[in-house]
Amino acid sequence: MTSVAQADLQPQIEQGLRDLAALVALPSVSAQGRHLPETAAAVTALLEAEGFTVQAYSGQVAPVLVAEAGEGPFTLLIYNHYDVQPEDPLDLWATPPFKLTERDGRLYGRGASDDKGELISRLAGLRALKAARGGVLPLKVKWLIEGEEEVGSPSLDAFLAAHAAELKADGVWWEFGSITPEGRPVLYAGLKGIVCVELRCAVAAGDLHSSNGAVVDNPLWRLAAAAASLRDADGTVLIPGFHDDVRPPSEADLAAIARLPGTGEALRDTYAVTRPLGEGSEYHTRLNLKPVVNVNGFHGGYGGEGSKTVLPAAGTVKLDFRLVPDQHPDRVVELLRAHLNAQGFADIEIVELESHQHPARSDLAHPFVQTAVRVAQAVHGFEPILNPSSGGSGPMHPFMAHVGAPVIALGIGNVGGRVHAPNENILRRDFENGVRFAAAFLEALAEGPA
Amino acid sequence: MTSVAQADLQPQIEQGLRDLAALVALPSVSAQGRHLPETAAAVTALLEAEGFTVQAYSGQVAPVLVAEAGEGPFTLLIYNHYDVQPEDPLDLWATPPFKLTERDGRLYGRGASDDKGELISRLAGLRALKAARGGVLPLKVKWLIEGEEEVGSPSLDAFLAAHAAELKADGVWWEFGSITPEGRPVLYAGLKGIVCVELRCAVAAGDLHSSNGAVVDNPLWRLAAAAASLRDADGTVLIPGFHDDVRPPSEADLAAIARLPGTGEALRDTYAVTRPLGEGSEYHTRLNLKPVVNVNGFHGGYGGEGSKTVLPAAGTVKLDFRLVPDQHPDRVVELLRAHLNAQGFADIEIVELESHQHPARSDLAHPFVQTAVRVAQAVHGFEPILNPSSGGSGPMHPFMAHVGAPVIALGIGNVGGRVHAPNENILRRDFENGVRFAAAFLEALAEGPA
Repeated sequence: MTSVAQADLQPQIEQGLRDLAALVALPSVSAQGRHLPETAAAVTALLEAEGFTVQAYSGQVAPVLVAEAGEGPFTLLIYNHYDVQPEDPLDLWATPPFKLTERDGRLYGRGASDDKGELISRLAGLRALKAARGGVLPLKVKWLIEGEEEVGSPSLDAFLAAHAAELKADGVWWEFGSITPEGRPVLYAGLKGIVCVELRCAVAAGDLHSSNGAVVDNPLWRLAAAAASLRDADGTVLIPGFHDDVRPPSEADLAAIARLPGTGEALRDTYAVTRPLGEGSEYHTRLNLKPVVNVNGFHGGYGGEGSKTVLPAAGTVKLDFRLVPDQHPDRVVELLRAHLNAQGFADIEIVELESHQHPARSDLAHPFVQTAVRVAQAVHGFEPILNPSSGGSGPMHPFMAHVGAPVIALGIGNVGGRVHAPNENILRRDFENGVRFAAAFLEALAEGPA
Repeated sequence: MTSVAQADLQPQIEQGLRDLAALVALPSVSAQGRHLPETAAAVTALLEAEGFTVQAYSGQVAPVLVAEAGEGPFTLLIYNHYDVQPEDPLDLWATPPFKLTERDGRLYGRGASDDKGELISRLAGLRALKAARGGVLPLKVKWLIEGEEEVGSPSLDAFLAAHAAELKADGVWWEFGSITPEGRPVLYAGLKGIVCVELRCAVAAGDLHSSNGAVVDNPLWRLAAAAASLRDADGTVLIPGFHDDVRPPSEADLAAIARLPGTGEALRDTYAVTRPLGEGSEYHTRLNLKPVVNVNGFHGGYGGEGSKTVLPAAGTVKLDFRLVPDQHPDRVVELLRAHLNAQGFADIEIVELESHQHPARSDLAHPFVQTAVRVAQAVHGFEPILNPSSGGSGPMHPFMAHVGAPVIALGIGNVGGRVHAPNENILRRDFENGVRFAAAFLEALAEGPA
């Protein structure tokens, strides 16, 4: 173990919780353009207070921050985001979404986990390392913090391409990861890609009496039939050509997946999931390797109490596709268009909702990845769980493509963390260990990766 | 022509418009239980002012009014309703829905056509006949006015069964009908039946991050697949057994349908319908004789701006089925249940939203029906259009079953009337002719049906 592990980190943990409460209080919802420059300024102030020089660049939706501090043989690029998902449905929150609230060992609030909690736990760990080293940060830390992750990071790919030299690093620490209920840290060496679209169908200028259903087609039926045609009952995408570019998993990927514990019991225990897909041995293979389509929302016509005998004029369906290497987002949209046309739904419009994310997967054997695993084992006291890929998505591919460094994701989320949903939370235990991990990981990298 | 046709009906027309404005101002939305006793009281006051004795009975949702006035050899039972459909979406109304507003020869407001306009035009005509006859109403008029029609008339069947003797009549004048743009009155001798249900699917206690779509089934996909399976692209219902009880149309029905003008051009002209089903000769056959299923609403998950990568916990679909003789509503629900089970959707709950309506069709050759046709020709000055059935629904079957009289529907709606939708309206011309028809029809019946 490294010297910072012996230090008393409680002061940094307490300061971190105060910082987190202040950040959660800012409703920085990127999908709705709320409070983004204000939150970027708050993050900048926190970083500058730790000696970072901070540059703010214009993004498409929100400022992109690039911060730099420290000196040493190893250069670490950290990636986080300060934007959050919308808070609706509001009535399902037990406490206000933008007020960090501690209850039974958990800290509740929008962004408490994704991603303000991650960001602050790392900053608090960095403070602890500096405190243990007499105010010196013994490695170069570059920190890229964007405000557009929850709308698909539309600026990031071009930004990384334009700033590749400035952001050159020996390893990238991702904004993502979780701790199991028993305390095992969960690492990810890859992310699925994503494509978000809205399907729109309209048949008339206004709603009609539903007796006209005998002589006018129904836009909600058309959208239902279109959505139904995208996958089968088992969740396998049925769009012709969709699977053509799927890279077969490596032996190392399959071996890592075979070591992964559990089969999604927490989904049943925490979310009362009644319809799991692919239980048992299929669980991790699906999450890591299976590309899927999700219906995120379906809206049209009457949704109030009782009935209304209306033939709606129009409706919309929101979809996301989760992709695996080497599927290409643009190609998926093309295939979707061709599929809808072939199914007789050429009239259904496809609106691309945000920038796509390419899928990505790092080499599990790289020393940077292995250092993260080793420090996580030491700090958490449990064997880390190393996933070839998360089931989630994010802009990992642009780092691989432009910065050229291996990427590892390790964070402080938990399986009951309700990320993107009401009552998002982290465990206080995981926040505290997150601070300790950040301090020890930075110190280990400063001393040279395993 | 009868004597009332020579009278000046303008005073009764003006008073009728004032009465209608007062009724439209009461938002009597039965699906939401709004202002129903208050509206029943307002209607009662109008009828009592014309010498009716009015009894109010308790319905399941709203009072049922039975009024009686006049003496003569013919007994007419009139049927209307004082409840209306919900006004949403509010932002599509050009003027407030509950303020009767005249604009370019049309009167706009929720209920202006369906059914407060009908009700008041008849009352104004009755006033005119009394005025022409020195205050005497020369036939027995029974008037049944309910407040539950827009939620499927849940009380009416049992009410008619219990009050069959009290409501005995020689003919029933229905609450429904329209005038073509050129001025031809449109009569209906039948109505489709209706079944309204909500499909519900839930897979978890709360929304999940959509990355879980790889390992948890999606309730909106399940609902979409279930809804898609109910019909084909042509609108034909695919539920096994659904068509077994469809009565073949009579030769008279087919002959009447063959005489019907137009092929739905108004749907294109007024509603900008882009996806008609069965244009040309199929149009009237479909509206009169084809049973269909409509998706009235589909709601679940995120519906705001941009995207939200959520796996929704649950969703709902509202459906109505329009039935033809001799389909049975209960049987349709049974067949739907069996179909969903067979398709793998046993987990999807079927909630019956309101009382069902049986389909009904009267004999086109009955003297009561023919009197209506003859008077309509005389008042409107155009050949009436006689439909064996409307594409719409209502409780006609209970009258046939319990009162045992022929039923004819003739009213003052118009094809651009946006019934059940924003900007519901009637033409002022049609209201005025509706008053004249009511006066002349009552007079003709008093003198003996053709």
